[in-house]
Amino acid sequence: MSLNTFGHLFRVTTWGESHGPALGATVDGCPPGVPITPEMLQKWLDKRRPGQNKNTTQRNEPDAVEILSGVYEGQTTGTPVQLMIKNTDQRSKDYGEIAKTFRPGHADITYHQKYGLRDPRGGGRSSARETAARVAAGGLARAALAELASNVEIKGYMTRMGDLEIDRSRFDWDAIEGNDFWIPDAEAAPEWEAYLQSIRKEHNSVGAEIEVVARNIPAGLGAPVYGKLDTDLAAAMMSINAVKGVEIGEGMAAARLKGTENADEIYMGANGPEYSSNHSGGILGGISTGQDVVVRFAVKPTSSILTPRKSIRIDGSPTEVITKGRHDPCVGIRAVPVAEAMMACVILDHLLLHRGQIGDDPRGSIG
Amino acid sequence: MSLNTFGHLFRVTTWGESHGPALGATVDGCPPGVPITPEMLQKWLDKRRPGQNKNTTQRNEPDAVEILSGVYEGQTTGTPVQLMIKNTDQRSKDYGEIAKTFRPGHADITYHQKYGLRDPRGGGRSSARETAARVAAGGLARAALAELASNVEIKGYMTRMGDLEIDRSRFDWDAIEGNDFWIPDAEAAPEWEAYLQSIRKEHNSVGAEIEVVARNIPAGLGAPVYGKLDTDLAAAMMSINAVKGVEIGEGMAAARLKGTENADEIYMGANGPEYSSNHSGGILGGISTGQDVVVRFAVKPTSSILTPRKSIRIDGSPTEVITKGRHDPCVGIRAVPVAEAMMACVILDHLLLHRGQIGDDPRGSIG
Amino acid sequence: MSLNTFGHLFRVTTWGESHGPALGATVDGCPPGVPITPEMLQKWLDKRRPGQNKNTTQRNEPDAVEILSGVYEGQTTGTPVQLMIKNTDQRSKDYGEIAKTFRPGHADITYHQKYGLRDPRGGGRSSARETAARVAAGGLARAALAELASNVEIKGYMTRMGDLEIDRSRFDWDAIEGNDFWIPDAEAAPEWEAYLQSIRKEHNSVGAEIEVVARNIPAGLGAPVYGKLDTDLAAAMMSINAVKGVEIGEGMAAARLKGTENADEIYMGANGPEYSSNHSGGILGGISTGQDVVVRFAVKPTSSILTPRKSIRIDGSPTEVITKGRHDPCVGIRAVPVAEAMMACVILDHLLLHRGQIGDDPRGSIG
Amino acid sequence: MSLNTFGHLFRVTTWGESHGPALGATVDGCPPGVPITPEMLQKWLDKRRPGQNKNTTQRNEPDAVEILSGVYEGQTTGTPVQLMIKNTDQRSKDYGEIAKTFRPGHADITYHQKYGLRDPRGGGRSSARETAARVAAGGLARAALAELASNVEIKGYMTRMGDLEIDRSRFDWDAIEGNDFWIPDAEAAPEWEAYLQSIRKEHNSVGAEIEVVARNIPAGLGAPVYGKLDTDLAAAMMSINAVKGVEIGEGMAAARLKGTENADEIYMGANGPEYSSNHSGGILGGISTGQDVVVRFAVKPTSSILTPRKSIRIDGSPTEVITKGRHDPCVGIRAVPVAEAMMACVILDHLLLHRGQIGDDPRGSIG
Repeated sequence: MSLNTFGHLFRVTTWGESHGPALGATVDGCPPGVPITPEMLQKWLDKRRPGQNKNTTQRNEPDAVEILSGVYEGQTTGTPVQLMIKNTDQRSKDYGEIAKTFRPGHADITYHQKYGLRDPRGGGRSSARETAARVAAGGLARAALAELASNVEIKGYMTRMGDLEIDRSRFDWDAIEGNDFWIPDAEAAPEWEAYLQSIRKEHNSVGAEIEVVARNIPAGLGAPVYGKLDTDLAAAMMSINAVKGVEIGEGMAAARLKGTENADEIYMGANGPEYSSNHSGGILGGISTGQDVVVRFAVKPTSSILTPRKSIRIDGSPTEVITKGRHDPCVGIRAVPVAEAMMACVILDHLLLHRGQIGDDPRGSIG
Repeated sequence: MSLNTFGHLFRVTTWGESHGPALGATVDGCPPGVPITPEMLQKWLDKRRPGQNKNTTQRNEPDAVEILSGVYEGQTTGTPVQLMIKNTDQRSKDYGEIAKTFRPGHADITYHQKYGLRDPRGGGRSSARETAARVAAGGLARAALAELASNVEIKGYMTRMGDLEIDRSRFDWDAIEGNDFWIPDAEAAPEWEAYLQSIRKEHNSVGAEIEVVARNIPAGLGAPVYGKLDTDLAAAMMSINAVKGVEIGEGMAAARLKGTENADEIYMGANGPEYSSNHSGGILGGISTGQDVVVRFAVKPTSSILTPRKSIRIDGSPTEVITKGRHDPCVGIRAVPVAEAMMACVILDHLLLHRGQIGDDPRGSIG
Repeated sequence: MSLNTFGHLFRVTTWGESHGPALGATVDGCPPGVPITPEMLQKWLDKRRPGQNKNTTQRNEPDAVEILSGVYEGQTTGTPVQLMIKNTDQRSKDYGEIAKTFRPGHADITYHQKYGLRDPRGGGRSSARETAARVAAGGLARAALAELASNVEIKGYMTRMGDLEIDRSRFDWDAIEGNDFWIPDAEAAPEWEAYLQSIRKEHNSVGAEIEVVARNIPAGLGAPVYGKLDTDLAAAMMSINAVKGVEIGEGMAAARLKGTENADEIYMGANGPEYSSNHSGGILGGISTGQDVVVRFAVKPTSSILTPRKSIRIDGSPTEVITKGRHDPCVGIRAVPVAEAMMACVILDHLLLHRGQIGDDPRGSIG
Repeated sequence: MSLNTFGHLFRVTTWGESHGPALGATVDGCPPGVPITPEMLQKWLDKRRPGQNKNTTQRNEPDAVEILSGVYEGQTTGTPVQLMIKNTDQRSKDYGEIAKTFRPGHADITYHQKYGLRDPRGGGRSSARETAARVAAGGLARAALAELASNVEIKGYMTRMGDLEIDRSRFDWDAIEGNDFWIPDAEAAPEWEAYLQSIRKEHNSVGAEIEVVARNIPAGLGAPVYGKLDTDLAAAMMSINAVKGVEIGEGMAAARLKGTENADEIYMGANGPEYSSNHSGGILGGISTGQDVVVRFAVKPTSSILTPRKSIRIDGSPTEVITKGRHDPCVGIRAVPVAEAMMACVILDHLLLHRGQIGDDPRGSIG
């Protein structure tokens, strides 16, 4: 990872600030011949877009993505793909006071300490708006995956929001897209909505836990010992705004287990090795096993709340901060499509890396 | 991160297998003029070394590090530093059966599926022996940090081992080095030892949780949005063998919090900003705040256990695996010095990156 | 260098095709606090722009650069700077035949062989229009250099065009910007113009040799043994369209010299070491000496000519190609500002790299 | 290129100084399953080794390469390959005076200015001994190429040494390995030897020009616009000690040509496109055409000569330098196997890159 770039061969560089003229993703290394249209990307951007429902911020951006390069007659050419999203809903306001105050829990103070100046409008580069560019790049990655490994399926969903968590016995993969919280349980959605409205009414916010699963991933993706699949996934998720923890498979709970409980036993199935369980989250030694790749992460509660918090100004003087404006009471909801996008980029990247070092033919057959 | 390299400017490439002639770290980008001797590195290697006490594997390697390049008359020259550790305790045995069997929970099967062949001796490249090279590189990073930011202090310690966890009310920073478990509570050590011996006797293993803290880190290290300090730390820790989860500050628990609980309020102290708490783990927006940088991770229980587990052979036939040999019942113990080394490398790397982009003078003063 | 990115810390990724909606440069790693406006960049783009005079192509593009990110209130913020140039003069025409024919000396055939498809409009990604993005990035690099090393001066000029070469005894540094050929000899310009017109009239084109000099470069920039200053300069120049050779200092002529002729003797001057000559081109062992950095390169004659050349179509059938349209009879003229831009980027990049590894203070004083 | 690393996917990091304990190459990204033995590498090292004949330095190093990792039972495993060469002929001497004096034309002064200290023994890191590590890595690249593109053939030869140049009408590909100068003309060798002895006797040295050709390279290798095949080759050759210029195909002479003279016309041959000539050096738009890839470079005369040259000491005082010791009168001779090694690495790297982005199947067929 460079400063604003991730990926080895499928390299995504995002650029842009919350209230600048535009933001976007420069994608280098996409394979040629991938069918792609703005509409195919828009589908994913619409999923992330604010103003969609009453559970996310009311800012209303069309988030229309434009493809400025790298595509000819509906196909990628193998050259860099520039995906641009114009910022249209930049409310004019006075940023004078905000520019001189540090909001607790925000990057205001660290950007100031590092760079000596910052774009204060809407959080500048540290705004979650940056993730729109990731979602666009992820859409391209999905399109490329559809060509290279057509049955790969990637889906994210919330597993916890504050005091609420999903009931895994009621897990329904097909219910995820049918509710505003991307939870795998249609019937639970009203309770989640009522809870979030109560958080909003008390001028508060709440954290969340999201799980992303990639199905039908071929065995053999990843590389020891720093280009591991799990290493790249951990970095990808941790790079998302407000993320404070990342887990693969069993995750932090592995610390409580014994060896007899944790190891996934191996059987020979009809199409190759199968496992009795998936504590590993589909990754052993940094390389995919062919089981579902399972990543989980936690998002902290939005720091921008209407309850006053103590802080200081740039001159060191004390102040209290109430963050007015349009803010999500739970940013975790919109982190779901972002995490899916990151997963798609990482999987595609490792597919290309594997193909480069190993080739298309399987190296190690079993049975 | 490249396949076997981590770091932006302080770049560490490790090489070597468990039972090959040697392993080591090629370190590029170390500043010149850093005083370094093999003895200074050996101190850290001895901390990680197996055969130290009855709680780790009985394999007895001197793990003597040799400096083959990049140092002249006791100082780094700015050119690549090659740190080599010879493998001396390679017991001759027949690896024929192991080479054809996949141990559950091990990288045996994924290496085979990816590469078509693997070095089966002691786990080859996937062995935790690779981490000796990281510890050597971390020792060099510590020496460079001592020149550039002399009061930086980095310490790791166990916070959980299976059913046991530390009592934070008894946290004693100075007790960490005084016991075999690197726990910050001298009096608890006997209980941990008894517990681990019981695990060993039942032919089992157990997971662990480790926390690493870096103190006196200047504000401003890190970079949005993929070269974040927390992104690099997450990748660094996740790249260690057997790690399944990484947390920064509040970690996964952030999903349960409300905004009013999570944000660290800011005060003006005598030497700059101070915070009421450290839920952020010393990092906001990917950039250090000047508070302690706090990283936590979980290590799964060793897969190599004496209790039989079901598996298959390379020809697909079923088998049961009992892993004989010298294996730690809790690899988390030896992960402590490895995690410290990774922290030292990441902090130094970001210090150099910051100096490159920003320079030595502070950019943004407060008050 | 990645596929479409160059630079270590000051990383420039260009994107865009000749006749797509836009092209540009994504610049990551620019230091914060650099004053920059579109006008400051436009100055350099206007120098490269076609349609300027009768010696370059008549295509008329305003080449207006927009800054889409990374700049706030006229200063860089340290985050990625997106520089976009819209393509406005895209004459609508039928590319059907061109898309199926390979022009000799062009990348048509290799793009087809590699990617299986290409954007045939105006040469697509292989068009020299891509260099507009480099010039914009170079303008930003110049602005950053003005902050970090204010007396650095970078200038390029033609030294040969076909049969004509400059008379070094008449070298006039201040004459370079006063003529259409960027030659350091005002009086020679009419002869160069007459020569080029004769080339044009015979439906031909001609090659050129360009020299770029950077003055007042501090000693110590560069790094053994692959991040050498000359290595990066060679790559930077060779990456420009149509370049077939690169020289540092004495260049290819060094093959004819004896040791007694080639070595620059060293004297102690008032402000440090001075040299009796500059055969080295200001670089020894990959590191700058403090003398002028001198790079020279050759550009092949434009392949797009009105004289018919034999070729084949995509179906293998023979054909003859006459490239109509607006093409420079000597692309070397417009390579001058591009080469200056590349030099500025490389020098800035190595200044940042040096600062990262070594710091601002000089390490090795002499005398 | 990082500081001491080159390559995108086949990444070679060299380490070591002339008179340290050892030097070597850490090679990451080599495909698995490549048959390799130390003997296969030794063949190439022996070609480069000093003390071979009276035309090179009399230093006698066995240059025995050891494979320390990444190979199991004679095959690469896909993990990093460490190639180490011990330095055995380190004559003990007093380096006190040399350490305080700067040899004209050497990196002594720039290393001092950059790093503040240097290893003065035998030139330290700037010694041409570093190239032994490249030759070892190149041997591995050749072995991998033999698996992936078995008919690729790579050969370097001298084309000029001072006043002498080869007669291209007498070019004999098979004569190259039969003489001490690697010239493609067996009968000219005695004249070259007499000339070099006369140079040596006058206590002088002489420059050289070397050409490297890769045959049977598939079309489609390379990538616009900074990961071009010619860009990487230019960087690779320029990174070799003492190189001052690099040419592809027509090279610097392209500046003198007209478009009608330069473009290679295209015909349809039995096995695909053929060309009337190879001015392009087998590369168009940065991508291979399938013709011979032709690279040429110039090496300056050795700066270490027995004729006194004026210089200064570290304290600024004037001095005269005569470089005693064992030095080649023409380092160009030994640059031949080094350049072959760099060519092999670059070709393999681009083959892997191509396979990663495009896959094994041809994308764009013709005819």
